Amino acid sequence: MASLKRLLVGSPIRTERLTQERLTKKTALAVFSSDALSSTAYATEEILLVLAAAYVAPISQADAFSRVIPISIGIATLLVIVAISYRQTIHAYPSGGGAYIVAKDNLGTMPGLIAAASLLVDYVLTVSVSVAAGVAAITSTFVGTRLAWLDNHRVAFCIFFIAFIAIANLRGVRESGALFAGPTYAFIVSFMFMIAYGLIRFYLHPEIVPPPNDIDLTIAEGYQPHYLSLFLLLGAFSNGCAALTGIEAISNGIPAFKQPEPDNAAKTLTWMAALLATMFIGTSVMAHLYQIHPHEHETVISQFGRIIFTGYLGWFYYLVQITTAGILVLAANTSFADFPRLSSLLARDRFLPRQFANRGDRLVFSNGIVLLAVFSAILVWAFRGETSRLIPLYAVGVFLSFTLSQSGMIVHWWKEGRALRNMRASAIDNEAPANVKDVTGIERKTLAQVARLEKGSHWRKSLVINGVGAVATFVVLMVFIATKFIHGAWIVVVLVPLLVLMFLRIHRHYFDVAQQLSTEGLGQLRPIHHEVIVPISGLHRGVIAALEYAKSIAPHHVTAVYVNLDDETTQKLREKWQQWGSGVNLVVVASPYRSLLRPLLNYVDRVKRSSHGEVVTIVLPEFVPARWWQNLLHNQNTLFLKGALLFKRGVVVTNVPYHLEH
Amino acid sequence: MASLKRLLVGSPIRTERLTQERLTKKTALAVFSSDALSSTAYATEEILLVLAAAYVAPISQADAFSRVIPISIGIATLLVIVAISYRQTIHAYPSGGGAYIVAKDNLGTMPGLIAAASLLVDYVLTVSVSVAAGVAAITSTFVGTRLAWLDNHRVAFCIFFIAFIAIANLRGVRESGALFAGPTYAFIVSFMFMIAYGLIRFYLHPEIVPPPNDIDLTIAEGYQPHYLSLFLLLGAFSNGCAALTGIEAISNGIPAFKQPEPDNAAKTLTWMAALLATMFIGTSVMAHLYQIHPHEHETVISQFGRIIFTGYLGWFYYLVQITTAGILVLAANTSFADFPRLSSLLARDRFLPRQFANRGDRLVFSNGIVLLAVFSAILVWAFRGETSRLIPLYAVGVFLSFTLSQSGMIVHWWKEGRALRNMRASAIDNEAPANVKDVTGIERKTLAQVARLEKGSHWRKSLVINGVGAVATFVVLMVFIATKFIHGAWIVVVLVPLLVLMFLRIHRHYFDVAQQLSTEGLGQLRPIHHEVIVPISGLHRGVIAALEYAKSIAPHHVTAVYVNLDDETTQKLREKWQQWGSGVNLVVVASPYRSLLRPLLNYVDRVKRSSHGEVVTIVLPEFVPARWWQNLLHNQNTLFLKGALLFKRGVVVTNVPYHLEH
Repeated sequence: MASLKRLLVGSPIRTERLTQERLTKKTALAVFSSDALSSTAYATEEILLVLAAAYVAPISQADAFSRVIPISIGIATLLVIVAISYRQTIHAYPSGGGAYIVAKDNLGTMPGLIAAASLLVDYVLTVSVSVAAGVAAITSTFVGTRLAWLDNHRVAFCIFFIAFIAIANLRGVRESGALFAGPTYAFIVSFMFMIAYGLIRFYLHPEIVPPPNDIDLTIAEGYQPHYLSLFLLLGAFSNGCAALTGIEAISNGIPAFKQPEPDNAAKTLTWMAALLATMFIGTSVMAHLYQIHPHEHETVISQFGRIIFTGYLGWFYYLVQITTAGILVLAANTSFADFPRLSSLLARDRFLPRQFANRGDRLVFSNGIVLLAVFSAILVWAFRGETSRLIPLYAVGVFLSFTLSQSGMIVHWWKEGRALRNMRASAIDNEAPANVKDVTGIERKTLAQVARLEKGSHWRKSLVINGVGAVATFVVLMVFIATKFIHGAWIVVVLVPLLVLMFLRIHRHYFDVAQQLSTEGLGQLRPIHHEVIVPISGLHRGVIAALEYAKSIAPHHVTAVYVNLDDETTQKLREKWQQWGSGVNLVVVASPYRSLLRPLLNYVDRVKRSSHGEVVTIVLPEFVPARWWQNLLHNQNTLFLKGALLFKRGVVVTNVPYHLEH
Repeated sequence: MASLKRLLVGSPIRTERLTQERLTKKTALAVFSSDALSSTAYATEEILLVLAAAYVAPISQADAFSRVIPISIGIATLLVIVAISYRQTIHAYPSGGGAYIVAKDNLGTMPGLIAAASLLVDYVLTVSVSVAAGVAAITSTFVGTRLAWLDNHRVAFCIFFIAFIAIANLRGVRESGALFAGPTYAFIVSFMFMIAYGLIRFYLHPEIVPPPNDIDLTIAEGYQPHYLSLFLLLGAFSNGCAALTGIEAISNGIPAFKQPEPDNAAKTLTWMAALLATMFIGTSVMAHLYQIHPHEHETVISQFGRIIFTGYLGWFYYLVQITTAGILVLAANTSFADFPRLSSLLARDRFLPRQFANRGDRLVFSNGIVLLAVFSAILVWAFRGETSRLIPLYAVGVFLSFTLSQSGMIVHWWKEGRALRNMRASAIDNEAPANVKDVTGIERKTLAQVARLEKGSHWRKSLVINGVGAVATFVVLMVFIATKFIHGAWIVVVLVPLLVLMFLRIHRHYFDVAQQLSTEGLGQLRPIHHEVIVPISGLHRGVIAALEYAKSIAPHHVTAVYVNLDDETTQKLREKWQQWGSGVNLVVVASPYRSLLRPLLNYVDRVKRSSHGEVVTIVLPEFVPARWWQNLLHNQNTLFLKGALLFKRGVVVTNVPYHLEH
């Protein structure tokens, strides 16, 4: 076991190396952006899937699908708003401004916990959705080949990739960065080239666009054909909002950046948003120009690639598919960085079991990584590895946490503004010496100093930016819940409050324990009076070792207890005991039903009742066999007795082992 | 769990009731004979199955099947020989003369263990074969009805019945007797009537015999069609010897009889043998007269019953089938009485884990009962509940133990004869006073006394009887192995030596343990010098309780040990410790890899090395949550530490629990 763990995870890393594990901007872009960027691989397709349901409406099929362009532009606008909002957060919270911290600091504990719960749910979904979409990219390349049957083993593929990423993360954050930078940049370059090449070919040779494929309605599961209503358009918009997931990853992960962390993080965020907007709108435009419709066994990207990359560029199709699969599968990595980090924050605040706050052998939060892997694997299995079935659960958590985080920032800036107003009110004029303290001890600034602070603050501008962000994300959240509730969003709506309840319950327990264990008002150590009981199964060296130990604790208060299962054996023991003459009192208790445990426990209870405040110690002789299988040859009475005694108050159990040689 | 056990097994029974649990002759016949008698349900069929393979030979089919009569008479003769032999054993071993005891007493330990191993294997097979045949009797009645599909669920039926019998036995021996007497006597009466009625009808109306059914060769699996060779005849004879299994049950179970045990047991054995011989030969004669041939989905008994019970006696067919099924399923009960009893004997002699020697709540050897049920269920599952596939494994163990038991009896009688000869040689003449001791202290008898003893002994006659028994069973054993080796007997031939090896290995271990634990040469209890270590995770009430306890053991040798995982927290603890000023020395150990266990264990090792012969006690503060799920919220370091310390020599672990309230 131990050596298998070493092989997979590597040797332990010393604690001192903790601060060295930082990421450059380029590596950070790869590690934190893969989730956001990779969503271009499925966001357009998810929009088209909803629009496909309108094909029997009085407008033409092409007309319905053409709505993908305005919808995509709307989503890109939202993306820009959210990205600008998050830049504010990064500067205000340089040590990491996840939705949990921002909401808790500014709105209070409950909103913080709601944000935390929705983020945890969302990280699990990110892993499931990304891995499922990545596997779809791989199986798409086999459409029409002899390997098409691989599509039937999606779930197995997904679980394999989840395990792969989990192990990479258990090895440590820096190694993850190195592992994932290559695929991310390969994806960005090849995807951008595909869009550019697609555009050029379309304007040079518009005749290469094939007639649109037939739409297989079975893939739009859960959607009844109906008119292109506003509800349908909003549903398509909601599905496309999956493109925004992962945009908050950078603001959570600021401490992993090289110094100066906030500046590096903000720049990385801007780059990420620009890349994402370009690639997403590019994909939608291409899908529109080339009249690509969703298909059950092949992704939109794959269909598009097959059309444009022909002849001597045919190999580029495979490159795009492979890099898309690569970034998707690795996108899950964003969550493997964030889920354990958030869990550790929650654990430190006593809302999750404290085991999540511990760094493992390789300086990562191992328990969180393992838990995330398990939950996402279960989800993939339950939804049969199909991306479009997971999407309705996806964006609720993201937009709930966006809204709470942006609302928190509004309060944050408002407080900064109020602080400045107070400072100005109490400021002294410019002539007085700087930094005079007033009667209440508060430092007073000069008017010139206050003016400089006001100039550097921009709190009004920031408040407006985050205000717009909060309203926009809240509206999208409501739209999402309204359009996707029956398709799966309800699961998340139910789950988040349950998680919050769990957090509160756990917190309550830790609070209770801390109170009960508090050393408040405790003085010196009190002396203890002992009463010692040694349960024996006969007279042998193990028993003698236990008796010697017992006598050393309380020379005149040791009693050996023997359970009488057979009168003859008991009589022999009594005789042997007297001959031996150790001076220890031997008590024989009856056992009408041949049970060992019950009579012993009853005897302990009797002794406890008659002892007035003394501590009763049970000294258990225990022999330890040399080989594990030999345990099968001895009854495990000592073990059962230990288990039963654990729940008795005021009873201390001491094991005196006697080691057998062979 | 506990209440489910009560419901199934009943309340515990007090030990004093042990001797009251005795059986009358009539009840004992039901409990111990069901195995032997029930074999009439399949023994004839198994003979016919082998003969069926000869149907393409130059003799007529009817000719081949007619060999069932001489074969059955041969088997019945063998039965008489074995029964008479066992009557000798019963009188010589009134406290229970199983093959294990007889062989061990007279031939030595190894032959005893071989007998024991073969019997254990055989008891498992008895359960499997009987239950499988019982289920076949039930499914036979459904042939040609809508319920014929039940035949596909044989294994499930079998396992259900095994569980049923196991539970009945776990409830206790007397209740078992009451449960099984009815079905056994119902079977004897209805089966005898069937044979008698069949004979009468045949002589009054020979025209009711139908033309023989076609033989479906597929059922004679493993048998290539060939001439009616001597080998084939011996194979048929071997299969039929399954009828003898179970005949030894009474001699093993003598202590369960009412007093005088040997006389009652011997009488019961005679009755059982007479009944068995009559029913077995009767079945074979009927099968011959009515020209019944084996059939895949219907037993021979069932076919016979359908022919003779017509008209207003039609219901009698169902009665016979039901009582046959009943006795077969309950026949397994013989093994449920014998297997645990033999296991307990082996456990008492330290050849099996001592847990098998303990009587459970209901005064039965529960562990043996459970083990038998598990193994026989596995066997039924592996052989798909088909009687004829189990038969080749069956009789090896029986006849091996017969042979060893009879050989042991030969030695027994020879020793008695020698003892009488020695007595006569040293006897004094009739005139001298009786019971004079000679110079060596041996009591000397008068010639008249010796003559009386010689007259009452019959050792020569007994030696001849058991000699004939030993030779006959040995010859059958060889024939069985020769004819059935490739069909499954090899499994038992391999298994028995492995079991004997296991017995010896277990015995060796217990011997080693006894030697190491021997108190030989031990004097008074020696005083102990203590060194106490208290691993702490901080300063709280649980830790204080542990420190108080530690100081009470060794006031000036207590050290608290803290593992430094975080410099800041450690510094705070140091300050708090000094302020508190308990006088206990605080040692902080470093942990570069954030592990708690390793640094603590290393520290314990250092202390152990520097302490010269002192006992190192680890006092572990442990807080016990009020509810089980709260354990999930606390790391289980105490548990891991306990596990790791168990294997360190000279280290005593003391748990000081601190109970949380809610």
